[in-house]
Amino acid sequence: MGVVIPFGGSADAPLPSLDALVGLVADDMDRVNDGILARAQSHVELIPEIAGHLINSGGKRIRPMLTLASARMCGYSGEHHIKLATAVEFMHTATLLHDDVVDESDLRRGKQAARVIWGNQASVLVGDYLLGQAFKMMVETGSLDCLRILSHAAAVIAEGEVLQLSISQDTSTTEDAYLQVVGAKTAALFSAAAEVGGVIAGRPRDEQAALESYGRNLGIVFQLVDDALDYSGKQASLGKSVGDDFRERKITLPVVLSFRRGSKEERKFWQRTLEGGDQTDDDLIHAQKLMVRHKAIDDTIDRANHYGDIARDALAIFPDSAWKSALLEAVDFCIIRAY
Amino acid sequence: MGVVIPFGGSADAPLPSLDALVGLVADDMDRVNDGILARAQSHVELIPEIAGHLINSGGKRIRPMLTLASARMCGYSGEHHIKLATAVEFMHTATLLHDDVVDESDLRRGKQAARVIWGNQASVLVGDYLLGQAFKMMVETGSLDCLRILSHAAAVIAEGEVLQLSISQDTSTTEDAYLQVVGAKTAALFSAAAEVGGVIAGRPRDEQAALESYGRNLGIVFQLVDDALDYSGKQASLGKSVGDDFRERKITLPVVLSFRRGSKEERKFWQRTLEGGDQTDDDLIHAQKLMVRHKAIDDTIDRANHYGDIARDALAIFPDSAWKSALLEAVDFCIIRAY
Repeated sequence: MGVVIPFGGSADAPLPSLDALVGLVADDMDRVNDGILARAQSHVELIPEIAGHLINSGGKRIRPMLTLASARMCGYSGEHHIKLATAVEFMHTATLLHDDVVDESDLRRGKQAARVIWGNQASVLVGDYLLGQAFKMMVETGSLDCLRILSHAAAVIAEGEVLQLSISQDTSTTEDAYLQVVGAKTAALFSAAAEVGGVIAGRPRDEQAALESYGRNLGIVFQLVDDALDYSGKQASLGKSVGDDFRERKITLPVVLSFRRGSKEERKFWQRTLEGGDQTDDDLIHAQKLMVRHKAIDDTIDRANHYGDIARDALAIFPDSAWKSALLEAVDFCIIRAY
Repeated sequence: MGVVIPFGGSADAPLPSLDALVGLVADDMDRVNDGILARAQSHVELIPEIAGHLINSGGKRIRPMLTLASARMCGYSGEHHIKLATAVEFMHTATLLHDDVVDESDLRRGKQAARVIWGNQASVLVGDYLLGQAFKMMVETGSLDCLRILSHAAAVIAEGEVLQLSISQDTSTTEDAYLQVVGAKTAALFSAAAEVGGVIAGRPRDEQAALESYGRNLGIVFQLVDDALDYSGKQASLGKSVGDDFRERKITLPVVLSFRRGSKEERKFWQRTLEGGDQTDDDLIHAQKLMVRHKAIDDTIDRANHYGDIARDALAIFPDSAWKSALLEAVDFCIIRAY
């Protein structure tokens, strides 16, 4: 598709992966996983049942990894990063449960969504329970700064989701408006997850800000690549179906670019299928063709690269370490997923 | 119905009311109301719109009043009780928004439920936003103890709602199991609201525990009287329709008592209407008749009186004051509502 894979090196060089990061945090992550299981317990059986369904469904746990790796890169040797990372994953899980209700999704990570099995009601309430448990864990760390950062993120995430609801099915959404949604609904938790690692380690403000910026921009990369993947063939191999966003009539960056660059007739196509919700079996194929015609997928990944550069530069103030390398490679990995 | 109204005095004595409490907290409550409006703001218009709909729909604000009055009775002269009271009301509002989705209710305090006007999605997300704002305000007080108490309450409330979901439509629910639900879904926030008033005032542990007990038992009174009112004619005058719980097939204490005390045939009636959901127009009238036959409403109020006594005794360790009198009268008021 004409995009140069931006990782230099020879064709034999291994592709960027999360392996280094996963390896470094492995011991800590075991403790996070124990915490997740312990804190999702309740004498009300439905709670561990639903939480377990989601927690075991194979997410990459990238957000808690950010907290763990940030804290360790900052030289933290205490225990609180485990609780913070667990709280971050619970916040994310709660968001997924509520998202499924909001999106009326039937699948989540290739498995039946909790709302389909247990109903919307249980999804809303178990999400609330996990959020409550997340705040309890944050309180246990005794860090008001971490509480401030994560409670702010919780409000921003919800605000971003409401904003997405307001602009949903509006094909004339600008790239800026869409990025505002991404900044809130995805990047806010990535940035908070990374920032609290530096905060709990007691690092100075400039390092906290660097981690916040790294997390925010990595979150944008992550979301934009997700948006691109949803229209690309590679998606099927990731356990997701292609075209979910199209069927759910979500306005994402590939759509924003295709709509703006398209002819009058093409805009009518997007309006009919996404605003009007009138879709036939062939429409997804046609949507993908229009995206190729206007380089919408390539340029979405190009935009992701831009934010990836900012994320990498944000970490530049930290001295070299295995942790820093692993966090930098995570940026590359998030982008290479697109190819 | 043969129940003696438990307020002694002559027939001319004024009925217990919330007037004294409302009068004492009036200045503080103005500031809470300002805070509610300010914190429900967002550039995402849907948020103040939905929050305003619920906030202006005429709730009594009894939970934030508990925080304000508890703090003041404990001699607190700072500012943080305003933020805590506002956070408590936001937690309650968030719960209402999520409850409406869970209950599939069409009415809330006699007005159209937010979910009917704006959809389930917006109700879930705006609830999440208000919860995030609530935690931000708690963090601003800098009191980790208050954060611990209120985040614990948030988890317990959600757990109670899931429990209610599990036992819903099970007519063989015991009184104990039902009280467990009430303790979690209603009493937990009442108790936390009262307790943080003592905590922010820096009072010793025994006074905090007294306020916690007062709030918990007042919350049980409040819920049991609500349950009784739902089957009594007085409900209509409170802007609620009679029989909502019956139509929503909720198992409440009047049902638990009627079912257990009823004949085999009567139990079949409860099973058909509440477990099976097979209801005709005359069934509500018949349900009310069965409740009269078995004194289920009277005894629900009797049980409420029992918890009211505990609430009053809990406050006994505090010296007499206008604040204490007003909090005691609030117990009487919650019970007298039933008549």
